[in-house]
Amino acid sequence: MPESTTCPTVTDVANALDALRSSTPLVQSLTNVVSANFVTNVLLAAGASNAHIDNVHEAAGFASIASGVLVNLGTPDDGTAAAFTLAAEAARAAGTPWVLDPVGVGGLPWRTELAAGLLTLEPTAIRGNASEIIALAGLGSFARGVDSASDSEAAVPAAVALLEFSHVVSASGPVDYIVGRSEAGPVGVKVGGGSPLLTKVTATGCSLAALVAAYLSVSPTPLIGITSAHAHVAVASERAAANSCGPGTFAVAYLDALASVTPEDLRSALIEPLTL
Amino acid sequence: MPESTTCPTVTDVANALDALRSSTPLVQSLTNVVSANFVTNVLLAAGASNAHIDNVHEAAGFASIASGVLVNLGTPDDGTAAAFTLAAEAARAAGTPWVLDPVGVGGLPWRTELAAGLLTLEPTAIRGNASEIIALAGLGSFARGVDSASDSEAAVPAAVALLEFSHVVSASGPVDYIVGRSEAGPVGVKVGGGSPLLTKVTATGCSLAALVAAYLSVSPTPLIGITSAHAHVAVASERAAANSCGPGTFAVAYLDALASVTPEDLRSALIEPLTL
Amino acid sequence: MPESTTCPTVTDVANALDALRSSTPLVQSLTNVVSANFVTNVLLAAGASNAHIDNVHEAAGFASIASGVLVNLGTPDDGTAAAFTLAAEAARAAGTPWVLDPVGVGGLPWRTELAAGLLTLEPTAIRGNASEIIALAGLGSFARGVDSASDSEAAVPAAVALLEFSHVVSASGPVDYIVGRSEAGPVGVKVGGGSPLLTKVTATGCSLAALVAAYLSVSPTPLIGITSAHAHVAVASERAAANSCGPGTFAVAYLDALASVTPEDLRSALIEPLTL
Repeated sequence: MPESTTCPTVTDVANALDALRSSTPLVQSLTNVVSANFVTNVLLAAGASNAHIDNVHEAAGFASIASGVLVNLGTPDDGTAAAFTLAAEAARAAGTPWVLDPVGVGGLPWRTELAAGLLTLEPTAIRGNASEIIALAGLGSFARGVDSASDSEAAVPAAVALLEFSHVVSASGPVDYIVGRSEAGPVGVKVGGGSPLLTKVTATGCSLAALVAAYLSVSPTPLIGITSAHAHVAVASERAAANSCGPGTFAVAYLDALASVTPEDLRSALIEPLTL
Repeated sequence: MPESTTCPTVTDVANALDALRSSTPLVQSLTNVVSANFVTNVLLAAGASNAHIDNVHEAAGFASIASGVLVNLGTPDDGTAAAFTLAAEAARAAGTPWVLDPVGVGGLPWRTELAAGLLTLEPTAIRGNASEIIALAGLGSFARGVDSASDSEAAVPAAVALLEFSHVVSASGPVDYIVGRSEAGPVGVKVGGGSPLLTKVTATGCSLAALVAAYLSVSPTPLIGITSAHAHVAVASERAAANSCGPGTFAVAYLDALASVTPEDLRSALIEPLTL
Repeated sequence: MPESTTCPTVTDVANALDALRSSTPLVQSLTNVVSANFVTNVLLAAGASNAHIDNVHEAAGFASIASGVLVNLGTPDDGTAAAFTLAAEAARAAGTPWVLDPVGVGGLPWRTELAAGLLTLEPTAIRGNASEIIALAGLGSFARGVDSASDSEAAVPAAVALLEFSHVVSASGPVDYIVGRSEAGPVGVKVGGGSPLLTKVTATGCSLAALVAAYLSVSPTPLIGITSAHAHVAVASERAAANSCGPGTFAVAYLDALASVTPEDLRSALIEPLTL
C-alpha cells in the first residue's frame, strides 16, 4: 500500500465512507469483555461487520481471511494474549491490515511487555489515548487505568517515534492527533470536533480502533484510512450529542448517527494538517 | 414431549407467551462475550430470567435444574467449550430442553468439530442463520463470520437433515424457516414479518436462540415453542422499527417491545405452513 | 476508617456525591461478562471511573493503586477466580476498600466455596440480594440463579451475622436493608424508593456494588459510603422510570439520571434508621 505524502482531505474521507458502505468489510476483533458488544454494534452501524474471534485455535486462521484485525489489550488473559500474537502474525503474513489498541499500557507491567512483543509484529495502525501512546513509545508517562491523563498533543513525539513499527499512529483526545509515514518523512493530521460525551461512555475508543481496522481495508493509504475513522466518529458524535440528555441517550444516538452519517456529511469534518 | 403434527397457530403462540409470563422460566446461557448482556436483557424483557453459567465446575449442575439451556458457539475457549459439553450432557440426562446456536460453524474448523460433537448430544432445538445450518448439516456453504450469506429458504433441506439429531431446527432470515419432527414426517413453518434492523444490531440472533430455550420449557411441543420465540421476535421487532431512528434506538425499542407485546398482539404474527 | 454509630443522613449522602464528583475515584472491577459493559457505564455516568482488570498477572498490582475494588462472582472461571483472591489480598494489604458481590452464592457449590474463602479476606462491604446474603452467612436459603427469591428484610439477621467479616453489608430489594459495625453494636439503615424496572435490566445490582466501591473510597465511614451508593441508585432509578416506556428505555434513562442527579437531589432519598 502506498503512503500518503500529504494530509488527507474531506474528499478522501467521504470516498472512504463510500467504499466502506459498498464493501462492508469484515473485521476480526480480539477485544475486551467490556467493549465486545459495543465494538460490534459500532461496526454494524457504521457499515462494516464483525466477528469476535480470539481463541488460540481460530485466531490465526480467521486473520488470514478477515478484511482487517483489531487487537485490543483491554482484558487479556493467558489464552487471549496468545491469540493476539497468533492473529497479528497471521495478519502480517497475509497482508491483512491490523490495528493495535494498547489499552492500559504503561500502568500495567504484564500487558506492557505483551504490547512490546506485538509492536515487533508491525501493526498497520496504532490507536490509543495520549498516555498509552507515550508509554508504548517508552517515553515515560503513566496510564491511569484506561483514562487519558495527558493532553493528546503531548503524545505527538511518541506517535512519531512509533512510526518505526507502524504505518500510522493516532492519539485520541478532545482533538485527535494522527501521524503517518511517507518517503518525505512523517505527515501529521489533526481531527477536531467530536464530543466530550465520548469520554462518558465506555468503549468509544475501543470501537474507534475497530473502525480504523475497517477503514484501513477500504482506503488507498493507511493515513486516509485512519483519518476517515476518526472523522466518522467526530461527525457522528457531534450529531449524537445534539440529540442527547446524558451518557445513556448519547450512546444510543451515537449508533444511530454512525449509521445515518453520509459521505457528504463527512465533508464537514475538521481535518487539518499538523506541522511536525 | 409429544411432537406437533401440524403448523402451530397464532393461538398456540399466544398461549405460549401467556405460559412464559406466568412461569418466568430460568434459562442457563452459555453464550459469547459479545451477546451476554443483550441475551440476558432480552430474556428479562420477554418475561423469562437468565443465569450465565459457563464454567466447568457449575455448568452441569445448573443444567439439571434450569428450565432450559442455551449453548452458543460465538466465542468459545477451551474452558467454555468443555462446559458446553458438560451442560448439554446434563440437560439431556435431566430432560431439560437445550438449544444449540452454531455461530460461525462452517468457516471455522475448530468450532465446527465442536458443534459436530454437540449434535450427538441431541439438542432439543437448533437455531442458526442459513449458512450455519447448511454447514452444520454438512451440506456445504461457507459461513462468512457471523453473517448469513445465504437466503434462509436455501437452508430448508439442511434443516430437515438436522432433524436426525434435533426435534426442531430454524434458519433465521428475512423470513424464518422452521422444521420439526412428527410421526407423519417433517412439518414446516414460515414466520414472516420482523425488521431488517435486526441485522444491524449484534446478538439479536443469539438472543432469539435464548428465547427458544425459554419457550421450549413452557410449550406443549418443541415446534410450538420454537415458533413462539420466532413470532415474539418478529412482532416485537416490527413495533420497535416503527419507533426507531437507526440501530441504536432500535435496540432499545426492541427491549421495550419484547416486554410490551401481549399474547393478543402475537395473533398478528405471520405464521404459515411450509410445504416440505 | 472510623465507623458510623448512627444512621447516615441525606446530608451525608449529598456530601458523598460531591466528594465522588470532585475526585473521580478509579474502581478496579473484577466482574462478570454479562455486566462488564454496564458496570463501567454506570461508574462513568455517576462520576467515577473504571478499569476491568481481572487477570492473575495484574489483578494484585492494580488493586494496590485503585481507589476501590469490586469482586463479583457472576461468571468466574479458574483464571478469574484466582484473580479475585489476589485482588482481595492486595486490596486488604494496601487498605484499599473492596466490595464482595456474591452473585449466585447458595445455589452453586463451587462459587459458594470461593465466596467463603473471600470472606476471610474481610471485604470492606458486601452487597447482594437477600437469598445470596442469607446463603453467604450460611443461614440456609437457596439462590434461584441470580434473582432474589426472598424478601430483602428476611436477610437482615444474615447481614448482621456477616459483620463478623465485613464493615457493612447490604441486601437489595424493593427496600434496601443495610447494616454496619459500630462500637455500640450493629447499626441499621433502610433505603426506600427506587423502581421495579431495576429488576428488568441485568447488571443493575452488579453496578450498584461497583458504585459502593467508588463511594467507599470517598466517604468518611463505610456506612455512609454504602448508603450513598444505594441512595444514588434509588433516586436515579425513580427519575429514569418516569422517563421510560419499558426496560430498554429505562436502562438508557438510568445512565442519564445517574449523571444528572445532583447532591441536592439526593436530599430526597428515603433513608431511615432500621431498628435491629
